[in-house]
Amino acid sequence: MPDRFSFALHATDGKARTGVISTPRGQIRTPAFMPVGTAATVKAMMPESVAATGADILLGNTYHLMLRPGAERIDRLGGLHRFMNWSGPILTDSGGFQVMSLAELRKLTEEGVTFRSHVDGSRHSLTPERSMEIQKLLGSDIVMCFDECPALPADEAVVARSMRLSMRWAERSKAAFGDRPGHALFGIQQGGVTPELRAESAEKLKEIGFDGYAIGGLAVGEGQEAMFGVLDVAPDMLPEDRPRYLMGVGKPDDIVGAVKRGVDMMDCVLPTRSGRTGQAWTRRGPVAIKNARHADDPRPLDEECACPACRSYSRAYLHHVFRSGEIISSMLLTWHNLQYYQDLMAGMRAAIAAGEFATFEAEFHALRAEGDIERL
Amino acid sequence: MPDRFSFALHATDGKARTGVISTPRGQIRTPAFMPVGTAATVKAMMPESVAATGADILLGNTYHLMLRPGAERIDRLGGLHRFMNWSGPILTDSGGFQVMSLAELRKLTEEGVTFRSHVDGSRHSLTPERSMEIQKLLGSDIVMCFDECPALPADEAVVARSMRLSMRWAERSKAAFGDRPGHALFGIQQGGVTPELRAESAEKLKEIGFDGYAIGGLAVGEGQEAMFGVLDVAPDMLPEDRPRYLMGVGKPDDIVGAVKRGVDMMDCVLPTRSGRTGQAWTRRGPVAIKNARHADDPRPLDEECACPACRSYSRAYLHHVFRSGEIISSMLLTWHNLQYYQDLMAGMRAAIAAGEFATFEAEFHALRAEGDIERL
Repeated sequence: MPDRFSFALHATDGKARTGVISTPRGQIRTPAFMPVGTAATVKAMMPESVAATGADILLGNTYHLMLRPGAERIDRLGGLHRFMNWSGPILTDSGGFQVMSLAELRKLTEEGVTFRSHVDGSRHSLTPERSMEIQKLLGSDIVMCFDECPALPADEAVVARSMRLSMRWAERSKAAFGDRPGHALFGIQQGGVTPELRAESAEKLKEIGFDGYAIGGLAVGEGQEAMFGVLDVAPDMLPEDRPRYLMGVGKPDDIVGAVKRGVDMMDCVLPTRSGRTGQAWTRRGPVAIKNARHADDPRPLDEECACPACRSYSRAYLHHVFRSGEIISSMLLTWHNLQYYQDLMAGMRAAIAAGEFATFEAEFHALRAEGDIERL
Repeated sequence: MPDRFSFALHATDGKARTGVISTPRGQIRTPAFMPVGTAATVKAMMPESVAATGADILLGNTYHLMLRPGAERIDRLGGLHRFMNWSGPILTDSGGFQVMSLAELRKLTEEGVTFRSHVDGSRHSLTPERSMEIQKLLGSDIVMCFDECPALPADEAVVARSMRLSMRWAERSKAAFGDRPGHALFGIQQGGVTPELRAESAEKLKEIGFDGYAIGGLAVGEGQEAMFGVLDVAPDMLPEDRPRYLMGVGKPDDIVGAVKRGVDMMDCVLPTRSGRTGQAWTRRGPVAIKNARHADDPRPLDEECACPACRSYSRAYLHHVFRSGEIISSMLLTWHNLQYYQDLMAGMRAAIAAGEFATFEAEFHALRAEGDIERL
């Protein structure tokens, strides 16, 4: 294992890139999808099962963990990796996004944010300095700058003001992070859907200097077209030799479109959340397992998928356990969805390495256009 | 694999017995604890994980499965084993007990029971003949006679009348079961807490002739002392060369007391249900994981347990995920509880084989009397 964080680009195909991020806790093959382990668990999954799907890295949520069980407690217990039994790399967000979406009685100042916990109403504050401290207590391998992220659509002046605040916070985050060999700090580009603001943000971040660069403030209501519009220009504003992480994205077609545009890392709750609400993602698009058409169907969800749900169970079984409210429904569908996402990433990595990304993309869309297998 | 059902007694120690039931689908080491897979799933567990705890056989519930997804549907899908991905033996109950505890608008006649489903209000009937048909459609390896089971305490005349009805139903069950090599039919002794009624029931069952004999109508409110009172005499009324199955029992100390009195098989929802409500069973008694004393405790639930919950997680983690309502809490605590139950059975089998059951029992009670480990 290396003792420092590094990124090696192995191949490009158009703007699409494949490579490897090396950390003391393991390698991350890019493009990478990071399953979300909000409260120190990827919901309904054992961590060894998450690893079995091909995930190299998990995302943990600073906001949730600081409230429950608490960052100092996790530190006393040996850090987040040991606490949740995941030995690979962990990226933690800064808490900024979720304070804005989940906390109560938020108050935003130049200094940071004060708020009340959505769990028990207790008072807390988050600043760039405290966010860095919490992420250090958690033992995060990839730390995110503390930022503010407005929902879209928003007035351009609001977006600009927010972006500039985030850039001042990025500077404070860098100073507070200090020098931690083996751990990485990522800056977060903001600026909504306005290219000039995105460029200003990127310049400021590069001036500060980070180990990786995230594209933030997307997938917040702007729609895929607007998001791809930003992604047509934003990655090129960021250093080529650093990983680019698109935060909170997304659906499979969002992911393929983002990788095509030069994104290296992504995360989203969609595969796990869908797994609990009975939606399966397959090569032929989404499948609603509660639909009565599956009740007598002896076929697997996806014949070519190697996950336990597809290898050992029929659609009829998955339908039955979902309808019956059985926990194994969440377990199996989550596993399948994470497997589908990881297989998608592996397929893209291989296609980029082979210079066949365009073919991969065409086949991806063609299969989805066919829709689910014919009902029996 | 043998092509017939058989039972071989390997050793006895006092009244306690150890042996092996052989079926075409695998061997069942006795005394055996059967995890309950009510709706074609042992709740919160993958079937391969259930097998990993040492379980040789599962129990399926006729009442639940006939209502959802339906016995004919499971048959069309290849039977319950394939449906739920469990290749080992399955015992199914007859549906009689749960009709009485769960169904609505029950009507009991000599013929059988009509009722409305608790799931969707649909009308159904169960008779000895239909129960045998359903259990055959499910593909059950060990089929139970259709019986009626009054809650205790009950008037002796009521218990006697009910027992005699169950004996007439046992005769009809045997006739309807027919000749099915490789599959077993078990009779169910009734008679409440009255030795004379238990004896009358046993004589009738032996006259009909079964592959195994269950002790029914216990663990229905009579208390441990009364139950042990019945178990002091009931097993001896049943053939020595056939397995004896105590239905719906129980807590760890119930199980040890039952094995001591000559019982070979048991089932109970307790380890799985407790797993979902945050109660862990350990060698030192029950542990309520939600208790604040565990919040900072880095120690495992039970140092000597080999289950994933004990091997890879702290009490602090289990406390956190239970408090947070995370699915992994049910997954880990259920796994632990099933492991504890199977380890208990394995310990008793070894002790009986070594002629050391009394020592085992004394140590079992001594460790429990110590209570949970000291708080940190």
